[in-house]
Amino acid sequence: MTSLPRLVRNLDAVFKPSSVAVIGASHEPTKIGHVILRNFLEGGYGGKVYAVNPHTPDVLGVKTLKRASDAPGKIDCALVAVPEKYVQDALEDSIHAGARAAVVITGGFSEVGNKSGEERIRKLAIEHDLALIGPNCMGVLNPSARVDSVFLPIYKMGRPHAGGISFISQSGAVGGCIVDLAARAGVGMSKFVSYGNATVINESHLLSYLAADPSTQAVVSYMEGVKDGPHFMESARLLTKNKPLVVLKAGKSKQGAAAAASHTGSLAGSAEVYSAAFAQAGAVEAQTLEELFDFAKIFALPPAAGARVGILTNGGGNGVLAVDSTEAEGLKLAEFSPATLSALKSMLPAYATAHNPMDIIGDADSARYEQALSVMMKDPNIDVLVVIVLFQTAALDSSVVNVLVKAAQQKTKPVVVVSTGGEYTELHRRILDGYGIPTYPSPSSALRAVSRFLQYQNYRCRYHPSEPYCKK
Amino acid sequence: MTSLPRLVRNLDAVFKPSSVAVIGASHEPTKIGHVILRNFLEGGYGGKVYAVNPHTPDVLGVKTLKRASDAPGKIDCALVAVPEKYVQDALEDSIHAGARAAVVITGGFSEVGNKSGEERIRKLAIEHDLALIGPNCMGVLNPSARVDSVFLPIYKMGRPHAGGISFISQSGAVGGCIVDLAARAGVGMSKFVSYGNATVINESHLLSYLAADPSTQAVVSYMEGVKDGPHFMESARLLTKNKPLVVLKAGKSKQGAAAAASHTGSLAGSAEVYSAAFAQAGAVEAQTLEELFDFAKIFALPPAAGARVGILTNGGGNGVLAVDSTEAEGLKLAEFSPATLSALKSMLPAYATAHNPMDIIGDADSARYEQALSVMMKDPNIDVLVVIVLFQTAALDSSVVNVLVKAAQQKTKPVVVVSTGGEYTELHRRILDGYGIPTYPSPSSALRAVSRFLQYQNYRCRYHPSEPYCKK
Repeated sequence: MTSLPRLVRNLDAVFKPSSVAVIGASHEPTKIGHVILRNFLEGGYGGKVYAVNPHTPDVLGVKTLKRASDAPGKIDCALVAVPEKYVQDALEDSIHAGARAAVVITGGFSEVGNKSGEERIRKLAIEHDLALIGPNCMGVLNPSARVDSVFLPIYKMGRPHAGGISFISQSGAVGGCIVDLAARAGVGMSKFVSYGNATVINESHLLSYLAADPSTQAVVSYMEGVKDGPHFMESARLLTKNKPLVVLKAGKSKQGAAAAASHTGSLAGSAEVYSAAFAQAGAVEAQTLEELFDFAKIFALPPAAGARVGILTNGGGNGVLAVDSTEAEGLKLAEFSPATLSALKSMLPAYATAHNPMDIIGDADSARYEQALSVMMKDPNIDVLVVIVLFQTAALDSSVVNVLVKAAQQKTKPVVVVSTGGEYTELHRRILDGYGIPTYPSPSSALRAVSRFLQYQNYRCRYHPSEPYCKK
Repeated sequence: MTSLPRLVRNLDAVFKPSSVAVIGASHEPTKIGHVILRNFLEGGYGGKVYAVNPHTPDVLGVKTLKRASDAPGKIDCALVAVPEKYVQDALEDSIHAGARAAVVITGGFSEVGNKSGEERIRKLAIEHDLALIGPNCMGVLNPSARVDSVFLPIYKMGRPHAGGISFISQSGAVGGCIVDLAARAGVGMSKFVSYGNATVINESHLLSYLAADPSTQAVVSYMEGVKDGPHFMESARLLTKNKPLVVLKAGKSKQGAAAAASHTGSLAGSAEVYSAAFAQAGAVEAQTLEELFDFAKIFALPPAAGARVGILTNGGGNGVLAVDSTEAEGLKLAEFSPATLSALKSMLPAYATAHNPMDIIGDADSARYEQALSVMMKDPNIDVLVVIVLFQTAALDSSVVNVLVKAAQQKTKPVVVVSTGGEYTELHRRILDGYGIPTYPSPSSALRAVSRFLQYQNYRCRYHPSEPYCKK
């Protein structure tokens, strides 16, 4: 990290602060300064927590300070939730107290025309290398450090467990939705930042930081616009040399661009220009929120030797749909090796036919999945395994989860699981996602994600041509 | 219904039988003949239930019959779950016992090359106008009559409450997945049929029946192929004159067609031919399982006067995405009337701007939603309302559900809700769907469904030009 500018290095104090001060701590449960303080007090955060409020002696059992600089120790990160007119003072005082970083939740800056107010805090932060997130943002999460300055209550928005995906979002609302989805789905996250007006720290700084962050394996970004194109391209390229980047660009339509301008003041630019830039930067573009989430999950997988897809299913129709999607995404349907064909034939009931898609029929139990998987995992003609599981059948029980985990954890080829259904199915999907096996609600969504996984893998070969999966 | 052929009319005995016989009733909980019998005994079915099994005196507390014709009364519908070699005899005996219909779950017919066996039962059924569903199918649901011959256990596959959507599926597996989704999502269904090999009753008969069925408001179909093209076109057109038809055609790719041939023996035909035929028949085509479900839900809405979309949101980024999707789907972003603009301005906080998309900001509570909705529902410039709700904010509580229900139930224009998130959000989505307000997990999925809703509405005007929403 030492090669990074000090401003970017100071993001350490955003994600792993040794101490925090909640400036604007409040008694009122719906207030931002209440929710954030509670998150730190109850969330298992290991550093020192200060509450700042000159008008009350204590909040949530914590004795308040009149100002951050009254703290007996250093303030590493200031969490600012006071009205706009007090923000500059709070930041100056925090810098005085030793802050390397600040997360300014407060709105009322350039997004409502207050450009001078925003410029003042920008200058202040730059002068002191204060890594300032926001203003007008929703906060930051780092599950492994129990850092949680997101002001959406935890009973309304779930918090994901620690994992390898980091997510940077210009929109707090969109960010909150996706983080909530991840928590529900059992998908782990490394870091989440809602960066709001991006006055000091913008998407490019965050990409630089995450490129060097050992606990980030993939980065996901929702953006409405980029302030500094060349800076973005440079930091995105730096990241994608080693780690995947998934981008959802909003404001691509003519009227959407106007809406984005009024929302975050972003100059949106044409969809084609952005798409071309993302491709050049090695980023994978998502067109919808579903794709953003679906693509993010797939990069936990081991590399694929090629684009030949093997399909295993206990439901014939779902297998047919998977073949359609394989072709639609430009992937190849694997031709099973003779050894696979004969092994499958010998293990299957007479009424099942051994071919790809391999339909092991509705009466398949976990043992039959295990047999078929063991054969297909070994087949050198299969590069990617798409396993469709109808958990609803009478013959199948939950032990198929262990069978899938055992196969996927060999890590000899990527395995994705497709399961469509209701409560019982969702429960099993969450367990699989928790194990790092990406699951999808349909064959089409799974195969689209597989195609983007291979797209990035091919791009990465430019920088790592000696990787075994790169064509010589 | 009297204008329908007797074979089709006899489908009444499939969906609303006065009595059923489970032929192949079993003690074994994983056996089909056990699951089905249990469904009828425990599911609240009001007719007489007979259990047929010559090898045991009783099953699940029901005294068994050696054969269906031993029943003291008439058998209206035979539910056949005996091995293939006993099926013909079971059907002959059921006809003898008065059966008008049969649901043959048993496989082992043409799908494994046993064409002669299938031809024998076809002839038998046709000769007696026996409305035979299957063979090789997964059963039938009619929630309002408590008819449930689906052999997937209820703790693994949920059963939806009664509603207006009927779903016919060539694949039992795909059918089960979608029904399970509907149950989980709070979406009601009228009838579900897995029709398997379609030996006697095929998709065309079912469309004819459902066209005349007063409790079916929309029909959804998963198909791999059509056996009789002209018959399908005729029955589809008959249906779409009055009711929407959503079709997902699998086996559209070259290799998918081959997979479909091996799965249900369907001759798949080219994607273009099918798409053109569906368009001619007034059907709405879905490309994925997600679309099938998303489109199905939207037809519960009242008609729209045009294609001008009004967007209401408490999250700016989600509003931008909705504008992008509006344009991508060829819909128009409504220009609010002067009355709406001034009413919105007077009610909103100073930092919110009154325009479309209407972002009432993250601190919006239910009362602000109610105010904005009341104004937008009245605006003659808005034809369709897309309401984005971030349930995760501290300011919003569950009472926004009542606000949405109250607005939608005016039925003066279609209202759809978009909510992306985890457990808390899903809970509220289910409540809304239960009230008949279609909810979607993203702006893109919602606006795609809206566009298909308008597409069918325009088609329907050919037959109902005097409807108020049809352009004069």
